[in-house]
Amino acid sequence: MARTLDYLDRAQEVISRCQSLARFTEDPPRIRRTFLSLPMRACLQEIETWMYTLGMTTHIDAVGNLHGLYPAQDGSTLPRLLIGSHLDTVPDAGAYDGVLGVVLAVSLIASLDGRRLPFAIEVVGFSEEEGVRFGVPFIGSRALIGTVDELLLSRCDSQGISVRDAIRTYGLDPGEIPAATLKEGILGYLEFHIEQGPVLENISLSLAAVEAIAGQTRMELIFYGIANHAGTTPMTLRRDALAAAAEWTVAVEKEARAILGLVATVGLLQAKPGAGNVIAGECRATLDVRHASDAARSQAVKIILDTADEIAKRRGIQVTSTTKLAQAATPMDPFLVAQIEKAISQTGLTPHRMASGAGHDAMILAEKAPSAMIFLRAPGGISHNPRESVIPEDVANALVCGWHLLNQLAASPEFQKRTHRA
Amino acid sequence: MARTLDYLDRAQEVISRCQSLARFTEDPPRIRRTFLSLPMRACLQEIETWMYTLGMTTHIDAVGNLHGLYPAQDGSTLPRLLIGSHLDTVPDAGAYDGVLGVVLAVSLIASLDGRRLPFAIEVVGFSEEEGVRFGVPFIGSRALIGTVDELLLSRCDSQGISVRDAIRTYGLDPGEIPAATLKEGILGYLEFHIEQGPVLENISLSLAAVEAIAGQTRMELIFYGIANHAGTTPMTLRRDALAAAAEWTVAVEKEARAILGLVATVGLLQAKPGAGNVIAGECRATLDVRHASDAARSQAVKIILDTADEIAKRRGIQVTSTTKLAQAATPMDPFLVAQIEKAISQTGLTPHRMASGAGHDAMILAEKAPSAMIFLRAPGGISHNPRESVIPEDVANALVCGWHLLNQLAASPEFQKRTHRA
Repeated sequence: MARTLDYLDRAQEVISRCQSLARFTEDPPRIRRTFLSLPMRACLQEIETWMYTLGMTTHIDAVGNLHGLYPAQDGSTLPRLLIGSHLDTVPDAGAYDGVLGVVLAVSLIASLDGRRLPFAIEVVGFSEEEGVRFGVPFIGSRALIGTVDELLLSRCDSQGISVRDAIRTYGLDPGEIPAATLKEGILGYLEFHIEQGPVLENISLSLAAVEAIAGQTRMELIFYGIANHAGTTPMTLRRDALAAAAEWTVAVEKEARAILGLVATVGLLQAKPGAGNVIAGECRATLDVRHASDAARSQAVKIILDTADEIAKRRGIQVTSTTKLAQAATPMDPFLVAQIEKAISQTGLTPHRMASGAGHDAMILAEKAPSAMIFLRAPGGISHNPRESVIPEDVANALVCGWHLLNQLAASPEFQKRTHRA
Repeated sequence: MARTLDYLDRAQEVISRCQSLARFTEDPPRIRRTFLSLPMRACLQEIETWMYTLGMTTHIDAVGNLHGLYPAQDGSTLPRLLIGSHLDTVPDAGAYDGVLGVVLAVSLIASLDGRRLPFAIEVVGFSEEEGVRFGVPFIGSRALIGTVDELLLSRCDSQGISVRDAIRTYGLDPGEIPAATLKEGILGYLEFHIEQGPVLENISLSLAAVEAIAGQTRMELIFYGIANHAGTTPMTLRRDALAAAAEWTVAVEKEARAILGLVATVGLLQAKPGAGNVIAGECRATLDVRHASDAARSQAVKIILDTADEIAKRRGIQVTSTTKLAQAATPMDPFLVAQIEKAISQTGLTPHRMASGAGHDAMILAEKAPSAMIFLRAPGGISHNPRESVIPEDVANALVCGWHLLNQLAASPEFQKRTHRA
């Protein structure tokens, strides 16, 4: 095993590289790098130069994903392990969300010092994950599982430019998108990513194995009361839609606190007419519920909706609910999760498993390839923000963990006989 | 006493007249009659014709208030009892708010059948009470107590026209405003008005004596938490500003329910960023608290703010509060309130006293003259709405009550020796 000091140097290089990629932005000095933008092209070119020096061959697929291939010891390119993340960002982003996973993957190849494994490794930098430009996320990873369809290609950005035309303008051919689909022989997909939450910081750990990406339910509730004069309507004769929604919001929080691993959020209460001296006649509320277990999530949503009904009935008002999104949880591959835990232990750290509350490319890839993720502690739980950061020791630990993981997989006949059927 | 049947006929006439005045509007078929508008001028002219046939003399003062004088039995115009309400409306108004009080006063004079009382009666139709045009209410009644100052005269409407210029354009002289101030010898001010709330309907009564106009406190609170990802932030690590504000809203309602006569309203909770998948980092809340007792109101506001502090402290967030309005309660004249109760009894009804949660011209006049109000039941508690209505029997009861009240006052040496000193 390489010395820790080397890995701290490598970690500093990873961090410097992430920061240097921040210069490829549409909105300097802020970071904003969207799908098929000129800064994205320059960003890919920079990463390609790093890949070349490691003896990797690169290509850009028809949706703009960067692929860098590091062949197996026998020179073959299959079977193959994918390691990657995304290179696009939200507006006014930090330097690490997505980018870190790609830069770390390149650094892991470097840590092999030219040594080849029994399988090939493909580093992937996805061109689109955040959904900023076209309002639909995961376009990059969707191309790899073959779900970039005509509907998505016809979708337009705020300038009226379709995905199809944007691809052409970027110099790529939308007709070649099917060729980007994963072929047989993919052993798995690994993704390093900052946690984007405060859990690891709170328990003072560098790394965690992600065992599942939480499923989510997004709903809209509308409470219908009766708008009335705030001065002339006694408390006993009110049908206050905002008070009802507020009582329900408190109940949602209480329900979520009672169930391990559940998060439930009311992010908006929009009262009508929304004047200080008028009792609200209507109140729109958002609901976001997530859990790694679909059964636990469904049960919580049911209780939350029943509570809304009970509150409305008791107050003599009406409530309606509409489901805007119901997305099942995505379990990560159990074999890979166990291997990640073992690698974390080998690194000298306490292994920890957790669910990801946010969606990631691994959620998409999991449909076609055994997938797993490694989270790095996010100081302050901050992401999608210029204050986003990483701790050098955590990045070093991630590199050591990744090095152990590659060695474990290289030594595992069980892993190498798994092949993906497209 | 006149027969009830007569009074039902008179009530129907009052209702027809209110409805006929609805044709004087800036926004047909909706009712909208603002201060110093052309429809307001036509409205006053119509009412003047009714006054002429009753032997009243009329004049329009310098802010456009209509005054109709019915001299005493000795032909004198002092001492004098004022009866009135306002003739302007909110946008898309009903036909009765304000208007009913003026039309009822004219009908009361008619019910005297030419008989003169020991004191003169002046019917007043105020030109401005709702605050629609200049964003400041009570301009009509403020002229009678001498508080239309230079600051108010310089205030502009949405067209950039000042109160002063609007008065001139209407053909009146702002320099004459001081002459509108009440002179010595005013015995009192009476105002009939729809309740604008559901209390009388709820207890099945036609009429009530208003014993006070509630004081009110309006505040803005801002809860400051930490915005965060709804998927990746566990419940225990959240600083959710909206959840805190919701908990406080429930507490506000509970506090108001616990104190007789208190109303407290949160009409708006404005979360930032207000997205379904983001924990609110900030939440602005409005607070409106009213009570007939200033002490009870102050005590309630203190408890409500202490509760906000307690909630914020427990949740590890911050809260600030700003007072936007603090208006003391206005007690009505005890002698007149007792006389109104007696007149309600004489009408064969159960007397009832209540506070007004809304402001009225009587609140302004009370500063310079003994004032009192009679509320009429408002079906559904509805006002400021085209569906605003009155029940003919209630209007008849108001006329009978008013007739008894005038006779009681005419027979009361105690009342007639009260004189207002300006």
